[in-house]
Amino acid sequence: MNVLVINAGSSSLKYQLMDTDNAVVLAKGLCERIGIDGRIEHKPSDGRKIKKDLPMPDHAAALKIVVDTLIDPEIGCIKSMDEIGAVGHRVVHGGEYFNESVVVTPEVVEKIELCKELAPLHNGPAVIGIRSCAQVMENIPQVVVFDTAFHQTMPDYAYFYAIPYEYYNKYKIRRYGFHGTSHRYVSAQMTDILGKVEGTRIITCHLGNGSSITAVKDGKSIDTTMGFTPLDGLEMGTRSGSIDPAIVTYLMEKENLTPKQMNEILNKKSGLLGISEVSSDSRDIEDAIAKGNQHAILADRIMSYQIKKYIGWYAAAMGGVDAVVFTAGLGENNVALRANVCQGLEFLGIELDDERNKSAFRQSNNVEISKEGSKVKVYVIPTNEELVIAMDTAKLVENAK
Amino acid sequence: MNVLVINAGSSSLKYQLMDTDNAVVLAKGLCERIGIDGRIEHKPSDGRKIKKDLPMPDHAAALKIVVDTLIDPEIGCIKSMDEIGAVGHRVVHGGEYFNESVVVTPEVVEKIELCKELAPLHNGPAVIGIRSCAQVMENIPQVVVFDTAFHQTMPDYAYFYAIPYEYYNKYKIRRYGFHGTSHRYVSAQMTDILGKVEGTRIITCHLGNGSSITAVKDGKSIDTTMGFTPLDGLEMGTRSGSIDPAIVTYLMEKENLTPKQMNEILNKKSGLLGISEVSSDSRDIEDAIAKGNQHAILADRIMSYQIKKYIGWYAAAMGGVDAVVFTAGLGENNVALRANVCQGLEFLGIELDDERNKSAFRQSNNVEISKEGSKVKVYVIPTNEELVIAMDTAKLVENAK
Repeated sequence: MNVLVINAGSSSLKYQLMDTDNAVVLAKGLCERIGIDGRIEHKPSDGRKIKKDLPMPDHAAALKIVVDTLIDPEIGCIKSMDEIGAVGHRVVHGGEYFNESVVVTPEVVEKIELCKELAPLHNGPAVIGIRSCAQVMENIPQVVVFDTAFHQTMPDYAYFYAIPYEYYNKYKIRRYGFHGTSHRYVSAQMTDILGKVEGTRIITCHLGNGSSITAVKDGKSIDTTMGFTPLDGLEMGTRSGSIDPAIVTYLMEKENLTPKQMNEILNKKSGLLGISEVSSDSRDIEDAIAKGNQHAILADRIMSYQIKKYIGWYAAAMGGVDAVVFTAGLGENNVALRANVCQGLEFLGIELDDERNKSAFRQSNNVEISKEGSKVKVYVIPTNEELVIAMDTAKLVENAK
Repeated sequence: MNVLVINAGSSSLKYQLMDTDNAVVLAKGLCERIGIDGRIEHKPSDGRKIKKDLPMPDHAAALKIVVDTLIDPEIGCIKSMDEIGAVGHRVVHGGEYFNESVVVTPEVVEKIELCKELAPLHNGPAVIGIRSCAQVMENIPQVVVFDTAFHQTMPDYAYFYAIPYEYYNKYKIRRYGFHGTSHRYVSAQMTDILGKVEGTRIITCHLGNGSSITAVKDGKSIDTTMGFTPLDGLEMGTRSGSIDPAIVTYLMEKENLTPKQMNEILNKKSGLLGISEVSSDSRDIEDAIAKGNQHAILADRIMSYQIKKYIGWYAAAMGGVDAVVFTAGLGENNVALRANVCQGLEFLGIELDDERNKSAFRQSNNVEISKEGSKVKVYVIPTNEELVIAMDTAKLVENAK
C-alpha cells in the first residue's frame, strides 16, 4: 500500500509517500510559509530537488499542491490520487487517551483536540492537517500515530511528579514522554538483534536537537527523560532539561519575567546555546571546542555527563541493561559524544570498540559499536519515524477493511 | 575542649555543648519563640528535660539564657563561661567562598552576608547568631561550618545548569548542594570502614524530612542531588524535588500564582504530603499504606524508585560503586524503604541482608546491612553533624593558638 505520511506544523507540512509493501520511499518534500505565501520543495526518489513558490493560503491548499505534485507526470511518482491507500499523521500529544496508533474517526479528532492544551504548538496544526486531508482526499482513510503513545506503559511511580495530586486531576500534569515513535522503532530493531523481547532491558538514547532517553523493558517503555513537556530531562540544543525548579521562580523574580518569557528562555535560549554562547548546533560546538573555547567544552561535557548518568539511572530502574542504542542526529553521527558517554561505564558491562564507533558515522544501517563479547551490546540505529507511521497506517487500514 | 555548637534559625536557637576531647555531649537544648516571647528546653546529659518560659527579645538574650543555664549549679554542666573554649556555628550557605570550616573574622562575616541572597531564611539568622555570641561571649573564638562546603569539590560539568551562562555570572546560579556536613561525616566513617580513601566510590543517602544523595569519590563530593536550593533532586516530605521546569511556568499561568506562591507550593505542599494527601511524615505514610491508601502507596513508591535510580546515576558518574550509606531519620530507621531501594540493584553488586537490615533500626552505631561478601558494602551510619561542627571548631581554634 502507498501511504502518505504527513507531519503538519503551524505554517509547514512535511510529507513522504511510502510504498509499505517494499518499505521504499517514493517521494518526499516540505511545504513552508503556509498562510504567508507558500513554497514547496519536492524530492523525487531519483535525487532531484524541485523548488516552487506557489500560493498556500491554508494547509488544505498546501495539501492539494502536494497531491498535484505527486501525480504530476514530470516530477510525480503515481498516476492518480487513487494510488494513495491511506494517510498517516504524526501527532505529538495523545495525552492519556492513546497508547497506540488509531484510525481517524470524529471521536479521535475530538480527543486530539482535548490534548491541544498540553501541546498547543503541535496538536493544533495536526488537527488542521487531518481536516485538510478529509477535504482534499475525501474517502482516503487516515491514521494518527502519537509521539506519546509508546510511553503510556510507564508505571505511575515513574510518571507522577511529586507535586500536589490535585494538579494531576485538574490539569493532567504528569510525565508523558515524547519521541515515542523513534524509541519504539529503535528498541524494536534492537530486540530483533537480540533475538527476543521478553527479558530484554534496552536503553534508547534519541539525541538530536531535542533529546530523550528511554528505558525499554520487555519491549515496553517503563520510563523516559522527557516529561510533561519536551523540556524535561537532558540538556539539549536550546533547552535546559531538568533544573532545580526553584531557579525558575528565582529568575522570574530577579529578572521580572512572565511565565511565558521564562518558558521561552528555558526552551529557546538555554542548553548548548545558553552555556556555550556559541550555538545550539553540536557541529558548531565541536568547532569551538577545537579552538579551545571553554564554554563550548563545558556545554559538551554537561551533555555527555548527563547522558552517562541517565544510562546508570535507567539501568537501576530495570535491574540491569542488555543493550544501549544511540539514534537521531547526534546519536547517529557524534562519534566523540558516544565515546565520552560510554567511558567509565565498563562496570555496567559496556565496552565500546573505538574503531567500530568511528565507523558509525552517516551510516544508513544498524552498526554495532561495542566490542565483540561486550556484555552490553551498544548499537547505532538510524531512526525512521516515517517508516513506523507508514507501517502502522497500512496495517490499521488493512485490518479495518 | 568544650565547644558550644549553635544552629540559629529566624526565631530559634539550637545548642549543644560538647567535650571534644572525649566526644561527649555535656548538654543540649533549644530556644524557641525568640522575638515573640521565649521558651527554652534544656537537656542535661542525665536525661532530664527542663522547660522554662523566659523573655527572649532577641538572639543575644536567648544566648545569655543558654550560657546562664549551662553554668547553673542545679541544671548546668560547667562552672563558668571560661570553660567554653569555642563556639561552632552551623551555616547553611557558604556560596563559592568557603570549601571548608573557618575561624570567624570580620571578612568571614562579610562573605556570609554576601551569601544571604542565596539562602535568606538561613544565613541571616546565622549572622545574628555570630554577632550575638560576640556580644555575650566576648573573646571566645568562633568557627563557622558550612552545609555547602563539602560539595565545593564538584567539577563544573556537575554543578552547572544548562541555562544561559550570564545567570551564573549575574546571580551565581549553580548547583551548591546541602547536607554537606552530614555527607562528609558518614562518608568519612565509611572510608574508615573500607580502610582507605583513595580509590573509593561511596554513595551517601541522607534521607530525612529533607533528603539528598551524594557521590563521594576519593573522599570528595563530586556530585549531589540538591542544587541551587534544597528543593532540587529527590521527592521529600513536602518538597517536589526535580520536576519538568515547564510545570512551574504552566501552573503559575493556570493558577495565576506569583513566583513566591509557586515556590511555596513546591517547597511546602508537595512531596510525600502533596501526593499522599495524608502527611509529610513517613511514619504516617506507613500507617496509611497499611490501611491500603493508594495515594500513600504511590508517594512511597515514587521515593524509593527515585533513590534507586540516583544510586545508578551516581554509580555511572563514578564508574562504579564500593559502598552505599543510609543516614538521617528515614535512612537510619525506615527498614522497608531501604529494602525497596536496594531491590533490583544486585547487578551493581548490592546484596542486602534482610535480617541485618531489620536489625538496623534506632541504632546509635554503624551497622552493615549488606550480606557477607556483598561486592558493594551497604551501611546504616547515624549522622552526627554537631560532632563534626564541634571537632572542626576545636581543631581550628587549637591550630590558631
